[in-house]
Amino acid sequence: MTELPHSAGILPAGLTTADFARALADFAAAIGEEHTHTDAETLAEYGDPYRPAGTGTRASAVLLPGSVAEVQAVVRLANRYRIPLWTVSQGRNFGYGGGSPRVPGSVIVSLRRMDRVLEVNEDLAYAVVEPGVSFEKLYETLRAGNHRLTVSVPDIGWGSIIGNTLDHGYGFTWYGDHAERACGMEVVLPDGDLLRTGMGALTGGHAWHVHRRGFGPAAESLFMQSNFGIVTRMGVWLMPTPECYAPCFLKVPADSDLERLVGIVRGLLLDRTIQNIPLLADGLMLASAVARRDRWWPGPGPVPDDVITRILDELGLGRWNVRFALYGSEHIVDAQLSTIREAVSGIPGAELIAAEHSGDAAPADIPVPDHVQAGIPNREMLGALNWRGGRAGNLNFSPVAPLSGTHIRRLIDLLRPVMHDAGFDCLSAVMLTPRSGIAIFGLVYDSDDHDQVERAFAACREMVETAGRHGYGEYRSHLDVMDHVSGRFDFNDHAQRRFNQKIKDALDPHGILSPGKQGIWPGRTP
Amino acid sequence: MTELPHSAGILPAGLTTADFARALADFAAAIGEEHTHTDAETLAEYGDPYRPAGTGTRASAVLLPGSVAEVQAVVRLANRYRIPLWTVSQGRNFGYGGGSPRVPGSVIVSLRRMDRVLEVNEDLAYAVVEPGVSFEKLYETLRAGNHRLTVSVPDIGWGSIIGNTLDHGYGFTWYGDHAERACGMEVVLPDGDLLRTGMGALTGGHAWHVHRRGFGPAAESLFMQSNFGIVTRMGVWLMPTPECYAPCFLKVPADSDLERLVGIVRGLLLDRTIQNIPLLADGLMLASAVARRDRWWPGPGPVPDDVITRILDELGLGRWNVRFALYGSEHIVDAQLSTIREAVSGIPGAELIAAEHSGDAAPADIPVPDHVQAGIPNREMLGALNWRGGRAGNLNFSPVAPLSGTHIRRLIDLLRPVMHDAGFDCLSAVMLTPRSGIAIFGLVYDSDDHDQVERAFAACREMVETAGRHGYGEYRSHLDVMDHVSGRFDFNDHAQRRFNQKIKDALDPHGILSPGKQGIWPGRTP
Repeated sequence: MTELPHSAGILPAGLTTADFARALADFAAAIGEEHTHTDAETLAEYGDPYRPAGTGTRASAVLLPGSVAEVQAVVRLANRYRIPLWTVSQGRNFGYGGGSPRVPGSVIVSLRRMDRVLEVNEDLAYAVVEPGVSFEKLYETLRAGNHRLTVSVPDIGWGSIIGNTLDHGYGFTWYGDHAERACGMEVVLPDGDLLRTGMGALTGGHAWHVHRRGFGPAAESLFMQSNFGIVTRMGVWLMPTPECYAPCFLKVPADSDLERLVGIVRGLLLDRTIQNIPLLADGLMLASAVARRDRWWPGPGPVPDDVITRILDELGLGRWNVRFALYGSEHIVDAQLSTIREAVSGIPGAELIAAEHSGDAAPADIPVPDHVQAGIPNREMLGALNWRGGRAGNLNFSPVAPLSGTHIRRLIDLLRPVMHDAGFDCLSAVMLTPRSGIAIFGLVYDSDDHDQVERAFAACREMVETAGRHGYGEYRSHLDVMDHVSGRFDFNDHAQRRFNQKIKDALDPHGILSPGKQGIWPGRTP
Repeated sequence: MTELPHSAGILPAGLTTADFARALADFAAAIGEEHTHTDAETLAEYGDPYRPAGTGTRASAVLLPGSVAEVQAVVRLANRYRIPLWTVSQGRNFGYGGGSPRVPGSVIVSLRRMDRVLEVNEDLAYAVVEPGVSFEKLYETLRAGNHRLTVSVPDIGWGSIIGNTLDHGYGFTWYGDHAERACGMEVVLPDGDLLRTGMGALTGGHAWHVHRRGFGPAAESLFMQSNFGIVTRMGVWLMPTPECYAPCFLKVPADSDLERLVGIVRGLLLDRTIQNIPLLADGLMLASAVARRDRWWPGPGPVPDDVITRILDELGLGRWNVRFALYGSEHIVDAQLSTIREAVSGIPGAELIAAEHSGDAAPADIPVPDHVQAGIPNREMLGALNWRGGRAGNLNFSPVAPLSGTHIRRLIDLLRPVMHDAGFDCLSAVMLTPRSGIAIFGLVYDSDDHDQVERAFAACREMVETAGRHGYGEYRSHLDVMDHVSGRFDFNDHAQRRFNQKIKDALDPHGILSPGKQGIWPGRTP
C-alpha cells in the first residue's frame, strides 16, 4: 500500500489529504503501486543534493511511469486533480538543482524506468533513446553492439541524454552542442495528446531521426528548457568513430594572453580547423578539480593572486588553458595540427600538447582526462568539488558572450568581484563555439554549511543582475534563480514572457506541467 | 489617391467595397499612399508567375511597409478590419508559387522596401539583415566593404535571405542549410507585439546574433514555414572567405552505380571530409538546364531511355553526378581531396573533376557553374527552364529520404511513373546532408499551356499521396498543394495539425496572418 504523503513530503497546494490520497490511488492504479512513492528516502533522492539536509523545495510524491501510455495516464490524472507535475529524466543535474521541483508539493515524474535504446543505425550514425537512457548506457550499448559510433558526453556521464539535451547541455565532440544534434521527438503534451515532430509527424516517416525539420514550423526547440510537454523519445546523432582521435591541450602563461588566445582559437573554429567544443579554462578552475585549496591557502577568503601563480607553477598549468580535440583521417588531422601549431606560435610561452590515438583505442589506453572528448563517459568530476572541503556542493552561473577576448575579459572583470566579495574563489571556464562563449562560473561550497550555501545563492542572484545589466544573459540556470534570469530577458516590457505564457496557456490550460520552469508560469496555477 | 480594389483585385471575404476602401485609406495613412497598391500591374507582379495569365489566387492589394513600426501598424489594422494578410519578403520564390496568397482577397504585405543590411561583423562572421535584403544585395555589400566573408546562396540569387530561410531553403556552402545558420530574430507578432528571440530578448544582449538559443525555449523555428509572425530582422552566419575554394564534380556512368555512389558520399559527409551541401543530379536534369528537349526528342511524351543515354554521351554527363566543394587552407583541402579520390576509386568509370581557386578569386575568374558553391549569386537558372519550350514554368516536388541509395532509388521508382504517365520527363536532383537527401523533382512545363499546367499540378498532388503512403514527406511545397502535403503528416489522427492550430489561435485569435500557409489554418477565418 502506498504510504500517505504526510509521512515525508507535503501536499500539492489546494488539495486535502483525502483528495491527494485518492489521486495517489489513481496514479498507483495507472502505473503500479511499486512505482508510486511518497517515502522520505525516495523524495530525498529527488531533492537538491547541494543544500543542507531538510532545505530546498519539497515534492509530494515521486511517480515512475514505465511507458508512453503511462505518462499519458499520469498527465491526464494530474489535469483531473489539478496537481502540478515536475518532470525529470534522471534528476541528476546536480549543479542546477537535481530533481527538485520549482513548486512545493509538486509530484515528481521520473522517467528513469523508460531506459530503452530503441534503435541504433550504424550507416546513418544515429540512435533513438528514451528519456531514462544515460550517456553511460548508450555508450555501453554502442560498445556491446560493436558499433563504430561515438556519443558526445558531458563532463559527468550518469545523466539522461534527453534531459541534458532539453536543458541545452553541452558535450565536447563534433556533436557537443546537444540541442543541435537532437533529431525528431515524441512528446506527451500537457493534455495527454501524443505528438511526433518533424518527419515523424508523417505516419511511418522514414526521415524522422535523420532530417531536422518536417513540413511547417519545427517544434523540437519548443520542448527544450520549457514546460510544454514530456519528451518520451528522441533521435541522437552520433559521430562515426574516427580513424584518429587527437586530444590537445594548449596553455598560455600570462593573464594578458587571454585576448590573443581567444582570437586565435576563434579563427580556428570559424575556418573549421577545430570542430569540437573547446573548453577555455582558467588555471585555478583546473586546480580546483585536483586538490583542496587549503593545501595552498588556509584563509576563508579567496585565494590571493600570488598564491594562484604558485599553484599553477606547481601543477604545470597555464593561467589560461584550452582543451580541444581533432578527429578524422590521420593525414587530415596532421594537416589540421600543423595549421594550429603555426597559429599559436605567435603567443610567447604558449605550449601545445597533442596526443594521437586510434579512434578504436580502448578506454584503458586513453588517459582519463582525455576520455570526455573521446566520448567515453565518466564520473570523475563528481569528486572534483572538494575545493572547500566538507560535503561537495556547486552552483553554476552560466552567461553567454560573443566569442571575443574583450567580452570574456569584461565578464570576468564584472563577476570576479561579486564572487570574491561573497568569499568565493573565481573559478571559471568557457565552452567555445565559433561565435559564442558559454561561460561557467562555479561557486563551490560545503553543502552542509548553511552560511556558505546562502552566500552562494545570493552571489548567483547578484551575478544575474550584474551580467544582465551589461548585456549578458544565461543559457541555463539553477531552479532557484530561474525567475531572476528570465526576468532579465525583458525586451519590450517582457515580450518573451508574454509570448511563452500564451503558448503555455494554449497547450496547458490547467498549468499542470512543471510550472515555473525557466520562469514560464501558467496564467492559472493548478 | 489609391485606386479602388475592384479595378484589378478582389475583395477580402466578408468586407464590402466601402469597408475595404476605409481599410485601404487607413493602410495608406499608416505607410503612405505611394506604398499602397491595388493596380493590376502590381497585383500581377505578386501573382503565381508559372501559370496561364489570369489564373491563380488573386490578392486584393499590395502594401509595402518601410519599417517595423509600419509593419506593426498594418497588422493592427488587419486585426481591426479582419483582413487576411499574406506576407512575402521578395515574392520571388517562383517554383513554389511566387508572391501569390493562399486565400483569395488577401492583402499582400511585401517587405521589399525593408532592405537594409543592419550590421556586418567581420570578426564574428555574421551579418544582420532585413527581409528585403536579397542574396545579391548582401553579396554586393560584403564586396563593397572588402569583407572576407562569404554568404551561402541558393541557385537563383534574387530572392530574400530571410524569405528563403523561413521557407527552409538551401544553399551550397558550409552554411547551406539556411535555417541552421539563422541566429536571432525580431518578429512582429499577429497582435502587433514585437518579440526579439534568443539572446536578443535581453535588452542590449550582446549575443543575439552569435548564439542560437536564449533562456527558455528557442522560438526561431516557430517562425519558419508558419504564419505565427512577420520576421523583420535576422542574423545570418557567414563563412570566412577560405584560402582555397575547390569546386568538384563527380560523375558515374551507370544507373546501377547510384547505391554505391550515395554510400560513398554519405561516408565522406559523415566524417566531414565534405562539409558543404552536395547536389546529386541525374544527367537528364543537368541536360534540361542547357538545351530544349526537342533537340533530341520530338515527341510529346517522356524522352525514352536510349535517347537519354545519347544525350548524356553528347553532353559528357554521367548518369548520376555529384557537385560539391571544399574550402579551407590549401594543405587541408589537398588532404581532403586525396581522401575523396581514394574513396571514389572503387566505382568503375567514375570521374572526379576538381579545380582549385583562391578564396579571393574574382567572379570573372571562376566558371559560372562554379559560382553558386563559391557564394556568388546569379540568375542563370531562371533561363534554364526551357526544356519544353514556350513560357518557362516549373513546379517542384520535394520529398525527404534517409541518405541511402536504397531510399533514393525507391523514391525515383515510385515517382518516375507518375511523371511519365502525366507526360513529363523525370528530372531529379537531391541535396545531400550527412543523413538525409532532399529530393527535388522538377515538373517543367510551358506556363501558357493550360493543359500542361493542369497535368503538372495533378501529378504533383499524386506524388504527394504516393510518396506519403510510402513514408516520405515533403520539406516544402507549392502553395496549392500545402493542404495535401500537411494532410500526410497525420500521425495520431493529425496531432501536428492540432498542435499548430492551438498555437495559431493563441497567437493570432482573428486569424489574420497568412491563413492556410503550410496547411495551418486558424480556428476562425478573418
